Amino acid sequence: MLVKSQVKYIQSLGQKKSRDESGAFIAEGPKIVSEMLQEIPAQVQQVLGLKEWLTDHAGLLKGVEAIEISPAELEKISQLQTPNQVLAVLRKFEQVTQIKPEGKLVLALDTIQDPGNLGTIIRIADWFGIEYIVCGQDTADLYNPKVVQATMGSIARVKLLYTDLAGWLAEQKITVCAAALEGEDITAMQKPAEGIIVIGNESKGISADILKLVTKKITIPQKGKAESLNAAVATGIILSHLAT
Amino acid sequence: MLVKSQVKYIQSLGQKKSRDESGAFIAEGPKIVSEMLQEIPAQVQQVLGLKEWLTDHAGLLKGVEAIEISPAELEKISQLQTPNQVLAVLRKFEQVTQIKPEGKLVLALDTIQDPGNLGTIIRIADWFGIEYIVCGQDTADLYNPKVVQATMGSIARVKLLYTDLAGWLAEQKITVCAAALEGEDITAMQKPAEGIIVIGNESKGISADILKLVTKKITIPQKGKAESLNAAVATGIILSHLAT
Repeated sequence: MLVKSQVKYIQSLGQKKSRDESGAFIAEGPKIVSEMLQEIPAQVQQVLGLKEWLTDHAGLLKGVEAIEISPAELEKISQLQTPNQVLAVLRKFEQVTQIKPEGKLVLALDTIQDPGNLGTIIRIADWFGIEYIVCGQDTADLYNPKVVQATMGSIARVKLLYTDLAGWLAEQKITVCAAALEGEDITAMQKPAEGIIVIGNESKGISADILKLVTKKITIPQKGKAESLNAAVATGIILSHLAT
Repeated sequence: MLVKSQVKYIQSLGQKKSRDESGAFIAEGPKIVSEMLQEIPAQVQQVLGLKEWLTDHAGLLKGVEAIEISPAELEKISQLQTPNQVLAVLRKFEQVTQIKPEGKLVLALDTIQDPGNLGTIIRIADWFGIEYIVCGQDTADLYNPKVVQATMGSIARVKLLYTDLAGWLAEQKITVCAAALEGEDITAMQKPAEGIIVIGNESKGISADILKLVTKKITIPQKGKAESLNAAVATGIILSHLAT
Protein backbone atom coordinates (compact mmCIF):
# COMPACT_ATOMS: atom_id res chain seq x y z
CA MET A 1 0.00 0.00 0.00
CA LEU A 2 1.29 3.44 -0.90
CA VAL A 3 0.31 6.52 1.05
CA LYS A 4 -0.65 9.66 -0.82
CA SER A 5 2.59 11.48 0.02
CA GLN A 6 4.67 8.63 -1.48
CA VAL A 7 2.61 8.70 -4.69
CA LYS A 8 3.06 12.47 -4.89
CA TYR A 9 6.81 12.25 -4.26
CA ILE A 10 7.41 9.62 -6.95
CA GLN A 11 5.23 11.49 -9.44
CA SER A 12 7.21 14.65 -8.72
CA LEU A 13 10.42 12.93 -9.87
CA GLY A 14 9.15 13.37 -13.41
CA GLN A 15 10.18 17.05 -12.95
CA LYS A 16 13.81 18.20 -13.00
CA LYS A 17 13.24 20.61 -10.11
CA SER A 18 12.10 17.82 -7.81
CA ARG A 19 14.94 15.55 -8.91
CA ASP A 20 17.45 18.31 -8.19
CA GLU A 21 15.96 18.98 -4.76
CA SER A 22 15.68 15.34 -3.69
CA GLY A 23 18.76 13.99 -5.43
CA ALA A 24 16.68 11.07 -6.68
CA PHE A 25 15.37 9.75 -9.99
CA ILE A 26 13.24 6.86 -11.23
CA ALA A 27 13.84 3.89 -13.53
CA GLU A 28 11.07 1.63 -14.77
CA GLY A 29 10.41 -1.79 -16.20
CA PRO A 30 11.83 -5.26 -15.45
CA LYS A 31 14.87 -4.99 -17.69
CA ILE A 32 16.17 -1.65 -16.44
CA VAL A 33 15.33 -2.21 -12.77
CA SER A 34 17.05 -5.63 -12.79
CA GLU A 35 20.12 -4.10 -14.36
CA MET A 36 20.22 -1.29 -11.77
CA LEU A 37 19.95 -3.86 -8.94
CA GLN A 38 22.80 -5.87 -10.40
CA GLU A 39 25.10 -3.04 -11.47
CA ILE A 40 24.52 -0.25 -8.96
CA PRO A 41 22.61 -1.71 -5.99
CA ALA A 42 23.98 0.96 -3.64
CA GLN A 43 22.14 3.65 -5.65
CA VAL A 44 18.74 1.94 -5.36
CA GLN A 45 16.66 3.51 -2.59
CA GLN A 46 13.38 1.72 -3.14
CA VAL A 47 11.80 -0.80 -5.48
CA LEU A 48 8.03 -0.69 -5.98
CA GLY A 49 6.70 -3.69 -7.84
CA LEU A 50 3.81 -6.02 -8.46
CA LYS A 51 3.71 -9.13 -6.26
CA GLU A 52 4.83 -11.55 -9.00
CA TRP A 53 7.82 -9.45 -9.97
CA LEU A 54 9.00 -9.04 -6.38
CA THR A 55 8.62 -12.79 -5.74
CA ASP A 56 10.48 -13.74 -8.92
CA HIS A 57 13.35 -11.36 -8.12
CA ALA A 58 13.71 -11.91 -4.39
CA GLY A 59 17.37 -12.82 -4.88
CA LEU A 60 18.13 -9.44 -6.44
CA LEU A 61 16.28 -7.55 -3.72
CA LYS A 62 18.36 -8.55 -0.69
CA GLY A 63 19.05 -5.51 1.46
CA VAL A 64 16.84 -3.27 -0.70
CA GLU A 65 13.59 -1.67 0.45
CA ALA A 66 10.92 -3.38 -1.67
CA ILE A 67 7.27 -2.37 -1.56
CA GLU A 68 4.49 -4.44 -3.05
CA ILE A 69 2.02 -2.35 -5.00
CA SER A 70 -1.13 -3.00 -7.01
CA PRO A 71 -1.42 -2.47 -10.78
CA ALA A 72 -3.58 0.60 -10.01
CA GLU A 73 -0.85 2.05 -7.78
CA LEU A 74 1.81 1.33 -10.39
CA GLU A 75 -0.28 3.18 -12.95
CA LYS A 76 -0.41 6.21 -10.64
CA ILE A 77 3.36 6.46 -10.12
CA SER A 78 4.49 5.37 -13.60
CA GLN A 79 5.72 7.78 -16.27
CA LEU A 80 5.28 5.11 -18.97
CA GLN A 81 2.31 4.89 -21.30
CA THR A 82 2.16 1.19 -20.47
CA PRO A 83 3.34 0.71 -16.87
CA ASN A 84 5.51 -2.39 -16.66
CA GLN A 85 5.59 -4.38 -13.41
CA VAL A 86 8.18 -2.43 -11.43
CA LEU A 87 9.61 1.02 -10.72
CA ALA A 88 12.75 1.90 -8.77
CA VAL A 89 13.70 5.13 -7.01
CA LEU A 90 17.45 5.69 -7.23
CA ARG A 91 19.93 8.14 -5.74
CA LYS A 92 21.53 10.34 -8.40
CA PHE A 93 25.16 9.52 -9.19
CA GLU A 94 28.06 11.44 -7.73
CA GLN A 95 28.47 14.47 -9.96
CA VAL A 96 31.24 14.19 -12.55
CA THR A 97 33.34 17.35 -12.25
CA GLN A 98 36.28 16.55 -14.48
CA ILE A 99 37.14 14.39 -17.47
CA LYS A 100 40.65 13.85 -18.80
CA PRO A 101 40.13 12.76 -22.41
CA GLU A 102 43.79 11.94 -23.14
CA GLY A 103 44.20 8.41 -24.46
CA LYS A 104 40.44 7.96 -24.82
CA LEU A 105 37.62 8.57 -27.24
CA VAL A 106 35.11 10.93 -25.63
CA LEU A 107 31.75 12.13 -26.94
CA ALA A 108 30.76 15.80 -26.64
CA LEU A 109 27.09 16.72 -27.10
CA ASP A 110 26.31 20.21 -28.32
CA THR A 111 22.70 20.60 -27.11
CA ILE A 112 20.99 17.26 -27.70
CA GLN A 113 17.48 18.23 -26.59
CA ASP A 114 15.39 15.17 -27.28
CA PRO A 115 15.46 12.85 -24.22
CA GLY A 116 15.07 9.75 -26.41
CA ASN A 117 18.09 10.80 -28.48
CA LEU A 118 20.23 11.41 -25.38
CA GLY A 119 19.30 8.04 -23.88
CA THR A 120 19.97 6.26 -27.17
CA ILE A 121 23.37 7.99 -27.45
CA ILE A 122 24.28 6.80 -23.93
CA ARG A 123 23.32 3.25 -24.92
CA ILE A 124 25.46 3.50 -28.07
CA ALA A 125 28.42 4.87 -26.09
CA ASP A 126 28.12 1.93 -23.70
CA TRP A 127 28.04 -0.54 -26.61
CA PHE A 128 31.26 0.88 -28.05
CA GLY A 129 33.05 1.17 -24.70
CA ILE A 130 32.96 4.99 -24.49
CA GLU A 131 33.14 5.89 -20.78
CA TYR A 132 32.57 9.63 -20.82
CA ILE A 133 30.20 12.08 -22.47
CA VAL A 134 30.64 15.84 -22.07
CA CYS A 135 27.34 17.74 -22.43
CA GLY A 136 26.66 21.40 -23.07
CA GLN A 137 24.34 22.92 -20.47
CA ASP A 138 21.31 22.88 -22.77
CA THR A 139 21.48 19.13 -23.27
CA ALA A 140 18.51 17.12 -21.88
CA ASP A 141 18.77 16.06 -18.22
CA LEU A 142 20.36 12.64 -17.69
CA TYR A 143 17.75 11.82 -15.03
CA ASN A 144 14.69 12.64 -17.17
CA PRO A 145 12.61 9.41 -17.10
CA LYS A 146 12.58 9.27 -20.92
CA VAL A 147 16.40 9.47 -20.99
CA VAL A 148 16.73 6.76 -18.33
CA GLN A 149 14.32 4.54 -20.29
CA ALA A 150 16.10 5.00 -23.61
CA THR A 151 19.49 4.09 -22.10
CA MET A 152 18.10 0.58 -21.47
CA GLY A 153 20.34 0.29 -18.41
CA SER A 154 23.49 1.88 -19.86
CA ILE A 155 22.94 4.85 -17.51
CA ALA A 156 24.64 2.66 -14.88
CA ARG A 157 27.92 2.64 -16.79
CA VAL A 158 28.48 5.81 -18.85
CA LYS A 159 29.49 9.01 -17.03
CA LEU A 160 28.21 12.43 -18.08
CA LEU A 161 29.77 15.81 -17.34
CA TYR A 162 27.48 18.83 -17.82
CA THR A 163 29.53 21.95 -18.41
CA ASP A 164 30.12 25.01 -20.58
CA LEU A 165 31.07 22.94 -23.64
CA ALA A 166 32.90 25.67 -25.56
CA GLY A 167 34.97 26.54 -22.47
CA TRP A 168 35.78 22.88 -21.84
CA LEU A 169 36.75 22.18 -25.46
CA ALA A 170 38.99 25.26 -25.54
CA GLU A 171 41.09 23.78 -22.72
CA GLN A 172 41.68 20.40 -24.39
CA LYS A 173 44.87 19.55 -26.26
CA ILE A 174 43.65 16.59 -28.32
CA THR A 175 41.84 16.43 -31.66
CA VAL A 176 38.24 17.69 -31.71
CA CYS A 177 36.26 15.97 -34.49
CA ALA A 178 32.83 16.88 -35.78
CA ALA A 179 30.67 15.52 -38.58
CA ALA A 180 30.24 17.92 -41.50
CA LEU A 181 29.05 17.59 -45.07
CA GLU A 182 32.64 17.90 -46.23
CA GLY A 183 35.39 16.25 -44.23
CA GLU A 184 37.50 13.10 -44.02
CA ASP A 185 35.48 9.99 -44.92
CA ILE A 186 35.02 7.99 -41.71
CA THR A 187 34.84 4.74 -43.68
CA ALA A 188 38.43 5.26 -44.86
CA MET A 189 39.94 6.93 -41.76
CA GLN A 190 42.55 5.48 -39.46
CA LYS A 191 41.03 4.75 -36.07
CA PRO A 192 42.24 7.44 -33.68
CA ALA A 193 43.75 6.40 -30.32
CA GLU A 194 42.25 9.46 -28.69
CA GLY A 195 39.92 12.29 -29.61
CA ILE A 196 36.74 14.18 -28.85
CA ILE A 197 33.78 13.59 -31.17
CA VAL A 198 31.26 16.44 -31.16
CA ILE A 199 27.62 15.63 -32.01
CA GLY A 200 25.45 18.61 -32.92
CA ASN A 201 21.88 19.59 -32.15
CA GLU A 202 19.07 17.62 -33.86
CA SER A 203 17.99 20.46 -36.11
CA LYS A 204 20.59 23.22 -35.85
CA GLY A 205 23.72 21.07 -36.03
CA ILE A 206 26.86 22.34 -34.32
CA SER A 207 26.76 25.88 -32.96
CA ALA A 208 29.13 28.53 -34.28
CA ASP A 209 31.17 28.90 -31.07
CA ILE A 210 31.77 25.13 -30.92
CA LEU A 211 32.56 24.87 -34.63
CA LYS A 212 35.49 27.27 -34.13
CA LEU A 213 37.07 24.74 -31.77
CA VAL A 214 36.76 21.76 -34.13
CA THR A 215 40.17 20.70 -35.46
CA LYS A 216 39.09 17.88 -37.77
CA LYS A 217 35.98 17.57 -39.91
CA ILE A 218 34.71 14.08 -40.62
CA THR A 219 31.98 12.86 -42.96
CA ILE A 220 29.57 9.95 -43.17
CA PRO A 221 29.53 9.14 -46.89
CA GLN A 222 26.14 9.64 -48.51
CA LYS A 223 24.88 7.78 -51.56
CA GLY A 224 21.22 8.79 -51.59
CA LYS A 225 19.27 11.99 -51.16
CA ALA A 226 18.40 12.31 -47.45
CA GLU A 227 19.74 15.65 -46.22
CA SER A 228 20.83 14.46 -42.81
CA LEU A 229 20.76 11.62 -40.31
CA ASN A 230 19.23 11.49 -36.83
CA ALA A 231 21.81 12.57 -34.21
CA ALA A 232 21.81 9.21 -32.42
CA VAL A 233 22.10 7.27 -35.68
CA ALA A 234 25.04 9.47 -36.74
CA THR A 235 26.71 8.83 -33.38
CA GLY A 236 26.33 5.06 -33.82
CA ILE A 237 27.75 5.15 -37.33
CA ILE A 238 30.73 7.33 -36.38
CA LEU A 239 31.63 5.20 -33.35
CA SER A 240 31.30 1.96 -35.34
CA HIS A 241 34.03 3.25 -37.65
CA LEU A 242 36.29 5.05 -35.19
CA ALA A 243 35.89 3.18 -31.90
CA THR A 244 36.09 -0.50 -32.87
CA MET B 1 -11.49 29.17 -43.25
CA LEU B 2 -12.02 25.48 -42.74
CA VAL B 3 -15.48 23.96 -42.44
CA LYS B 4 -16.16 21.39 -39.74
CA SER B 5 -16.23 18.45 -42.16
CA GLN B 6 -12.75 19.33 -43.46
CA VAL B 7 -11.37 19.51 -39.93
CA LYS B 8 -12.93 16.14 -39.14
CA TYR B 9 -11.59 14.57 -42.33
CA ILE B 10 -8.03 15.72 -41.76
CA GLN B 11 -8.12 14.67 -38.11
CA SER B 12 -9.38 11.24 -39.17
CA LEU B 13 -6.20 10.71 -41.24
CA GLY B 14 -4.41 10.07 -37.96
CA GLN B 15 -6.15 6.66 -38.04
CA LYS B 16 -5.07 3.84 -40.36
CA LYS B 17 -8.67 2.87 -41.13
CA SER B 18 -9.44 6.35 -42.49
CA ARG B 19 -6.21 6.47 -44.46
CA ASP B 20 -7.01 3.10 -46.02
CA GLU B 21 -10.54 4.21 -46.93
CA SER B 22 -9.59 7.60 -48.35
CA GLY B 23 -6.21 6.67 -49.84
CA ALA B 24 -4.77 9.83 -48.30
CA PHE B 25 -2.24 10.73 -45.59
CA ILE B 26 -0.83 13.88 -44.02
CA ALA B 27 2.64 15.40 -43.77
CA GLU B 28 3.47 18.38 -41.55
CA GLY B 29 5.97 21.14 -41.07
CA PRO B 30 7.83 23.43 -43.50
CA LYS B 31 10.71 21.07 -44.19
CA ILE B 32 8.68 17.99 -45.07
CA VAL B 33 5.89 19.82 -46.94
CA SER B 34 8.44 21.73 -49.06
CA GLU B 35 10.18 18.50 -49.90
CA MET B 36 6.89 16.82 -50.89
CA LEU B 37 6.02 19.78 -53.14
CA GLN B 38 9.41 19.59 -54.82
CA GLU B 39 9.77 15.82 -55.10
CA ILE B 40 6.24 14.46 -55.53
CA PRO B 41 3.96 17.41 -56.39
CA ALA B 42 1.49 15.12 -58.17
CA GLN B 43 0.75 13.35 -54.86
CA VAL B 44 -0.12 16.57 -53.03
CA GLN B 45 -3.89 17.06 -52.84
CA GLN B 46 -4.06 20.08 -50.58
CA VAL B 47 -1.76 22.36 -48.61
CA LEU B 48 -3.15 24.08 -45.52
CA GLY B 49 -0.85 26.75 -44.17
CA LEU B 50 -0.50 29.98 -42.27
CA LYS B 51 -0.57 33.12 -44.39
CA GLU B 52 3.19 33.82 -44.12
CA TRP B 53 4.16 30.33 -45.14
CA LEU B 54 1.86 30.30 -48.16
CA THR B 55 3.13 33.73 -49.27
CA ASP B 56 6.79 32.73 -48.85
CA HIS B 57 6.27 29.51 -50.83
CA ALA B 58 3.98 30.73 -53.60
CA GLY B 59 6.47 29.44 -56.18
CA LEU B 60 6.21 25.89 -54.87
CA LEU B 61 2.43 26.00 -54.74
CA LYS B 62 1.66 26.52 -58.43
CA GLY B 63 -1.17 24.23 -59.50
CA VAL B 64 -1.71 22.99 -55.96
CA GLU B 65 -4.85 23.66 -53.89
CA ALA B 66 -3.61 25.88 -51.06
CA ILE B 67 -5.85 26.97 -48.19
CA GLU B 68 -4.96 29.72 -45.78
CA ILE B 69 -5.73 28.77 -42.19
CA SER B 70 -5.36 30.43 -38.80
CA PRO B 71 -3.00 29.18 -36.07
CA ALA B 72 -6.09 27.96 -34.17
CA GLU B 73 -7.24 25.95 -37.19
CA LEU B 74 -3.76 24.50 -37.66
CA GLU B 75 -3.78 23.40 -34.04
CA LYS B 76 -7.07 21.59 -34.62
CA ILE B 77 -5.89 19.57 -37.62
CA SER B 78 -2.27 19.00 -36.54
CA GLN B 79 -1.00 15.71 -35.12
CA LEU B 80 2.14 17.42 -33.78
CA GLN B 81 2.63 18.53 -30.20
CA THR B 82 3.85 21.84 -31.58
CA PRO B 83 2.00 22.56 -34.85
CA ASN B 84 4.40 24.02 -37.36
CA GLN B 85 3.08 26.45 -40.00
CA VAL B 86 1.82 24.03 -42.63
CA LEU B 87 0.16 20.65 -43.23
CA ALA B 88 -0.31 18.81 -46.51
CA VAL B 89 -2.82 16.14 -47.47
CA LEU B 90 -1.27 13.70 -49.92
CA ARG B 91 -2.48 10.80 -52.03
CA LYS B 92 -0.94 7.49 -50.94
CA PHE B 93 1.69 6.10 -53.30
CA GLU B 94 0.95 3.43 -55.84
CA GLN B 95 1.21 0.17 -53.94
CA VAL B 96 4.50 -1.69 -54.40
CA THR B 97 3.60 -5.27 -55.31
CA GLN B 98 6.98 -6.70 -56.27
CA ILE B 99 10.65 -6.12 -55.57
CA LYS B 100 13.48 -7.81 -57.43
CA PRO B 101 16.46 -7.59 -55.08
CA GLU B 102 19.07 -8.99 -57.51
CA GLY B 103 22.02 -6.64 -57.88
CA LYS B 104 20.83 -4.43 -55.02
CA LEU B 105 21.01 -4.12 -51.27
CA VAL B 106 17.50 -4.34 -49.85
CA LEU B 107 16.32 -3.95 -46.24
CA ALA B 108 13.79 -6.37 -44.77
CA LEU B 109 11.99 -5.37 -41.56
CA ASP B 110 10.74 -8.14 -39.32
CA THR B 111 8.04 -6.29 -37.36
CA ILE B 112 9.40 -2.84 -36.59
CA GLN B 113 6.52 -1.55 -34.47
CA ASP B 114 7.64 1.86 -33.29
CA PRO B 115 6.64 4.50 -35.88
CA GLY B 116 9.65 6.67 -35.01
CA ASN B 117 11.98 3.75 -35.64
CA LEU B 118 10.36 2.95 -39.00
CA GLY B 119 10.57 6.57 -40.14
CA THR B 120 14.19 6.83 -39.02
CA ILE B 121 15.05 3.61 -40.87
CA ILE B 122 13.48 5.01 -44.07
CA ARG B 123 15.59 8.18 -43.66
CA ILE B 124 18.73 6.05 -43.17
CA ALA B 125 17.91 3.92 -46.22
CA ASP B 126 17.53 7.10 -48.27
CA TRP B 127 20.90 8.43 -47.02
CA PHE B 128 22.67 5.23 -48.11
CA GLY B 129 20.86 4.95 -51.44
CA ILE B 130 18.73 1.90 -50.54
CA GLU B 131 15.63 2.04 -52.76
CA TYR B 132 13.50 -0.75 -51.36
CA ILE B 133 12.37 -1.96 -47.95
CA VAL B 134 10.35 -5.17 -47.55
CA CYS B 135 8.17 -5.12 -44.42
CA GLY B 136 6.47 -7.94 -42.56
CA GLN B 137 2.73 -7.35 -42.13
CA ASP B 138 3.08 -6.34 -38.46
CA THR B 139 5.43 -3.47 -39.24
CA ALA B 140 4.12 0.04 -38.47
CA ASP B 141 2.09 1.72 -41.24
CA LEU B 142 4.16 3.83 -43.63
CA TYR B 143 1.46 6.53 -43.60
CA ASN B 144 1.23 6.88 -39.80
CA PRO B 145 1.88 10.61 -39.19
CA LYS B 146 4.75 9.76 -36.79
CA VAL B 147 6.41 7.63 -39.47
CA VAL B 148 6.00 10.35 -42.10
CA GLN B 149 7.47 12.90 -39.66
CA ALA B 150 10.48 10.77 -38.76
CA THR B 151 11.36 10.17 -42.44
CA MET B 152 12.07 13.92 -42.73
CA GLY B 153 10.99 13.79 -46.36
CA SER B 154 12.64 10.50 -47.33
CA ILE B 155 9.17 8.95 -47.65
CA ALA B 156 9.13 10.55 -51.11
CA ARG B 157 12.02 8.39 -52.31
CA VAL B 158 12.16 4.99 -50.60
CA LYS B 159 9.65 2.30 -51.65
CA LEU B 160 8.09 -0.09 -49.16
CA LEU B 161 6.52 -3.49 -49.90
CA TYR B 162 4.29 -4.90 -47.14
CA THR B 163 4.06 -8.67 -47.46
CA ASP B 164 4.35 -12.03 -45.72
CA LEU B 165 8.08 -11.61 -45.03
CA ALA B 166 8.93 -15.29 -44.47
CA GLY B 167 7.15 -16.26 -47.69
CA TRP B 168 8.91 -13.52 -49.62
CA LEU B 169 12.37 -14.36 -48.25
CA ALA B 170 11.87 -18.06 -49.02
CA GLU B 171 11.49 -17.19 -52.73
CA GLN B 172 14.70 -15.16 -52.97
CA LYS B 173 17.93 -16.56 -54.36
CA ILE B 174 20.41 -14.04 -52.91
CA THR B 175 22.14 -13.87 -49.52
CA VAL B 176 19.89 -13.04 -46.55
CA CYS B 177 21.94 -11.34 -43.79
CA ALA B 178 20.86 -10.68 -40.23
CA ALA B 179 22.62 -9.17 -37.25
CA ALA B 180 23.34 -11.66 -34.47
CA LEU B 181 25.60 -11.68 -31.43
CA GLU B 182 27.91 -14.09 -33.26
CA GLY B 183 28.53 -13.65 -36.95
CA GLU B 184 30.92 -12.08 -39.44
CA ASP B 185 32.28 -8.74 -38.19
CA ILE B 186 30.73 -6.02 -40.40
CA THR B 187 33.76 -3.77 -39.87
CA ALA B 188 35.98 -6.36 -41.61
CA MET B 189 33.53 -7.68 -44.24
CA GLN B 190 33.76 -7.24 -47.97
CA LYS B 191 30.99 -4.99 -49.19
CA PRO B 192 28.40 -7.19 -50.89
CA ALA B 193 27.14 -6.26 -54.37
CA GLU B 194 23.70 -7.59 -53.51
CA GLY B 195 21.87 -8.95 -50.49
CA ILE B 196 18.92 -8.68 -48.17
CA ILE B 197 19.60 -7.28 -44.69
CA VAL B 198 17.00 -8.32 -42.11
CA ILE B 199 16.38 -6.01 -39.13
CA GLY B 200 14.55 -7.57 -36.20
CA ASN B 201 11.88 -6.34 -33.82
CA GLU B 202 12.87 -3.73 -31.19
CA SER B 203 12.59 -6.08 -28.24
CA LYS B 204 12.16 -9.61 -29.60
CA GLY B 205 14.80 -9.51 -32.34
CA ILE B 206 14.31 -11.71 -35.39
CA SER B 207 11.46 -14.22 -35.25
CA ALA B 208 12.15 -17.95 -35.47
CA ASP B 209 10.54 -18.47 -38.89
CA ILE B 210 12.61 -15.63 -40.40
CA LEU B 211 15.82 -16.79 -38.70
CA LYS B 212 15.56 -20.12 -40.53
CA LEU B 213 15.82 -18.24 -43.84
CA VAL B 214 18.94 -16.25 -42.89
CA THR B 215 21.97 -17.47 -44.83
CA LYS B 216 24.64 -15.21 -43.31
CA LYS B 217 24.95 -13.91 -39.76
CA ILE B 218 26.69 -10.59 -39.29
CA THR B 219 27.80 -8.79 -36.12
CA ILE B 220 28.36 -5.23 -34.98
CA PRO B 221 31.48 -5.50 -32.81
CA GLN B 222 30.87 -4.60 -29.19
CA LYS B 223 33.49 -3.24 -26.81
CA GLY B 224 31.35 -2.21 -23.85
CA LYS B 225 28.50 -3.71 -21.89
CA ALA B 226 25.24 -2.57 -23.50
CA GLU B 227 23.24 -5.67 -24.42
CA SER B 228 21.83 -4.37 -27.67
CA LEU B 229 21.43 -1.35 -29.92
CA ASN B 230 18.25 0.44 -31.03
CA ALA B 231 16.93 -1.08 -34.29
CA ALA B 232 17.36 2.13 -36.30
CA VAL B 233 20.87 2.73 -34.95
CA ALA B 234 21.84 -0.86 -35.84
CA THR B 235 20.46 -0.31 -39.37
CA GLY B 236 22.53 2.85 -39.77
CA ILE B 237 25.71 1.14 -38.57
CA ILE B 238 25.24 -1.92 -40.79
CA LEU B 239 24.51 0.14 -43.92
CA SER B 240 27.46 2.46 -43.25
CA HIS B 241 29.74 -0.59 -43.46
CA LEU B 242 28.03 -2.59 -46.21
CA ALA B 243 26.39 0.01 -48.46
CA THR B 244 29.08 2.68 -48.96
